[in-house]
Amino acid sequence: MSSLTIPPPPCLQKRLLVPHRYMFGPGPSNVPTRILEAGAKPVIGHMHPEIFEIMNDIKSGIRYVFQTQNKVSLAVSGTGHTAMECAIFNTVEPGDSVLVAVNGIWGERAADMAERIGKAASSCSRCIISPQALSKHSPVLFFLAHGESSTGVLHPLEGIGDLCHKYNCLFLVDSVASIGGAPVYMDQQGIDILYTGSQKVLNAPPGTAPISFSERACRKVFNRTTKPVSFFLDLSWLANYWGCDDKPSRKYHHTGPVTAFYSLRESLAVLAEEGLENSWKRHQRVMLYFHAGLESMGLKLFVKDKDTRLPTVTTIVAPHGYDWKEITGYIMKTHNLEISGGLGPSVGLVLRVGLMGCNSSEANVDMVLAALRDALKHCHKSKV
Amino acid sequence: MSSLTIPPPPCLQKRLLVPHRYMFGPGPSNVPTRILEAGAKPVIGHMHPEIFEIMNDIKSGIRYVFQTQNKVSLAVSGTGHTAMECAIFNTVEPGDSVLVAVNGIWGERAADMAERIGKAASSCSRCIISPQALSKHSPVLFFLAHGESSTGVLHPLEGIGDLCHKYNCLFLVDSVASIGGAPVYMDQQGIDILYTGSQKVLNAPPGTAPISFSERACRKVFNRTTKPVSFFLDLSWLANYWGCDDKPSRKYHHTGPVTAFYSLRESLAVLAEEGLENSWKRHQRVMLYFHAGLESMGLKLFVKDKDTRLPTVTTIVAPHGYDWKEITGYIMKTHNLEISGGLGPSVGLVLRVGLMGCNSSEANVDMVLAALRDALKHCHKSKV
Repeated sequence: MSSLTIPPPPCLQKRLLVPHRYMFGPGPSNVPTRILEAGAKPVIGHMHPEIFEIMNDIKSGIRYVFQTQNKVSLAVSGTGHTAMECAIFNTVEPGDSVLVAVNGIWGERAADMAERIGKAASSCSRCIISPQALSKHSPVLFFLAHGESSTGVLHPLEGIGDLCHKYNCLFLVDSVASIGGAPVYMDQQGIDILYTGSQKVLNAPPGTAPISFSERACRKVFNRTTKPVSFFLDLSWLANYWGCDDKPSRKYHHTGPVTAFYSLRESLAVLAEEGLENSWKRHQRVMLYFHAGLESMGLKLFVKDKDTRLPTVTTIVAPHGYDWKEITGYIMKTHNLEISGGLGPSVGLVLRVGLMGCNSSEANVDMVLAALRDALKHCHKSKV
Repeated sequence: MSSLTIPPPPCLQKRLLVPHRYMFGPGPSNVPTRILEAGAKPVIGHMHPEIFEIMNDIKSGIRYVFQTQNKVSLAVSGTGHTAMECAIFNTVEPGDSVLVAVNGIWGERAADMAERIGKAASSCSRCIISPQALSKHSPVLFFLAHGESSTGVLHPLEGIGDLCHKYNCLFLVDSVASIGGAPVYMDQQGIDILYTGSQKVLNAPPGTAPISFSERACRKVFNRTTKPVSFFLDLSWLANYWGCDDKPSRKYHHTGPVTAFYSLRESLAVLAEEGLENSWKRHQRVMLYFHAGLESMGLKLFVKDKDTRLPTVTTIVAPHGYDWKEITGYIMKTHNLEISGGLGPSVGLVLRVGLMGCNSSEANVDMVLAALRDALKHCHKSKV
């Protein structure tokens, strides 16, 4: 006869306390009350007509922010990484070659994922796209992060889709850090798979990830000879659950995170209310204001080429003579404000500041600049 | 030059409306205000000290409800299916054999997942565990759903762990529908991997899935020769993010759904406050009261053996002469109350009623019985 051996943990007797904090790192961003309240509405069933309606709203919202007519547009029940895996799992079969532009951490991770699928995928090349690379590797998929939030680079998208298609390669774009903050035109730019996360410009809590597949991508996905490695991310199941296929009814696939869908729906509604172009312009204007302020303080921007600076996440060259960790720690402690250090290849080289969605405003720029000024005054500076 | 071609969708201009509903189907369950409110607290960073503290609370709570001392106890950022894949992805390598007890839909799905990993996994046998089966297939993993919510069966667990271990096989248990509602003693019952979902007895919204790995399971996982197919579910990354390994610091893996962690933490606190044994007793008592009421109405229970009836989800033989869909539709429409039909192998055979966590009370039983009585009176009954 078994009996309880693990007592109730005392830590769970304490009240749950969560501080308010200015979330000006590379994400998650602050979530406006309207979106937080949407997520606190009552739970209904993952197959009830009302949730299908909300999911339909989400699909329409995704088509708008992605600028696409793709039928297969939906939200994955997970974060950006889940969407990245959804894209790769569904399009890549064992033996397929994948080409990845590794310009920061997101490319590294996409390459890691592609290499896990099968032996030949490990031959994926880590170079920038070129006719030579496409011809040499015959990849089924080319991955590019539009907004590389680890380095602060916004990668141009024009022309890449057409080039990929000439070589029968699908064009996969990660827009987690850029969507809503910089122009993306999925259909016009020939993007075959586009995904983003809920917690950046969209200002919803992390946990859902919009994704869309072009007809060209669907032809590859729905005519593959092997099943994708994941049942949970199998697009034939997901497309049916989201009412994106031609089947008469939706089958139970998994229990959708309904309250996260409420928040995502509301965040798309907020962006649609402002209008995409207005949001792009605001992020651009606030970025320029921010960058001018940084330069007037004598700080240097990590991305030299003005045209490829990401409007949502700014990388600042780590101030000479300072310990970057002391700066971010000081600002968190003194100003209750998150800015962060580098990530992956940029660790130690930069400070990163994200002003995304509702956080992108001149008033917030002033707050960050004041905090930085204060930190540079009070943090230890070596004589070197 | 590209320009907007997709206008803002009018559907997003409507207000988000979500009805309150009695969630007495097989899940998700109703979420108490305390837990909904926890999920509406402000978003903080997925690597902030406060979220690590909340994640530590969750780990302690999982060890309590699973009755385990396992170091590697954490919550997957996804639903029960994600946890199922996490278990299978990490323990199964290409060529490995998996044995699955298929007693309903969950076994079917585990078998589907195992078959996707590699060729030899497709030789997984679909029989109940026996020394013969273990000896014949030499599986690395045996899957059993403790609470088969599609059929309403609670499968006994005693002795299976020991038997598996004799044949060097890991014992994987799905307790999505049972944890907190029926006794499970992970360590004493020799369970190597146990997982559940947030949205059943725990009464949190769907979106997180507690999981725990025994030392025996970790030996297999951390000494495999190939990487798991999924980066997102790679246990070496997850265990580090959750502070379950011996490394000095936590690395960024993915952006944890922080608000879903708040809700999960709170739901574990609610269960710890009541006490596991009290919760088990309450579910058992309410089930007996419910079953007596059903039988007194002339309805038949689908599971004949009283000792293997799942206390959380009751399967009722679909009333003779009625269309089950008319009954569930009538009750939803007239009583604003969800009960459901069968799932997978039980479609058309049963009605399913779930009374889980805060929903498990005599008052709610009375409400369901009244709704059923009303439906049998008003729905069309054929003369046959």
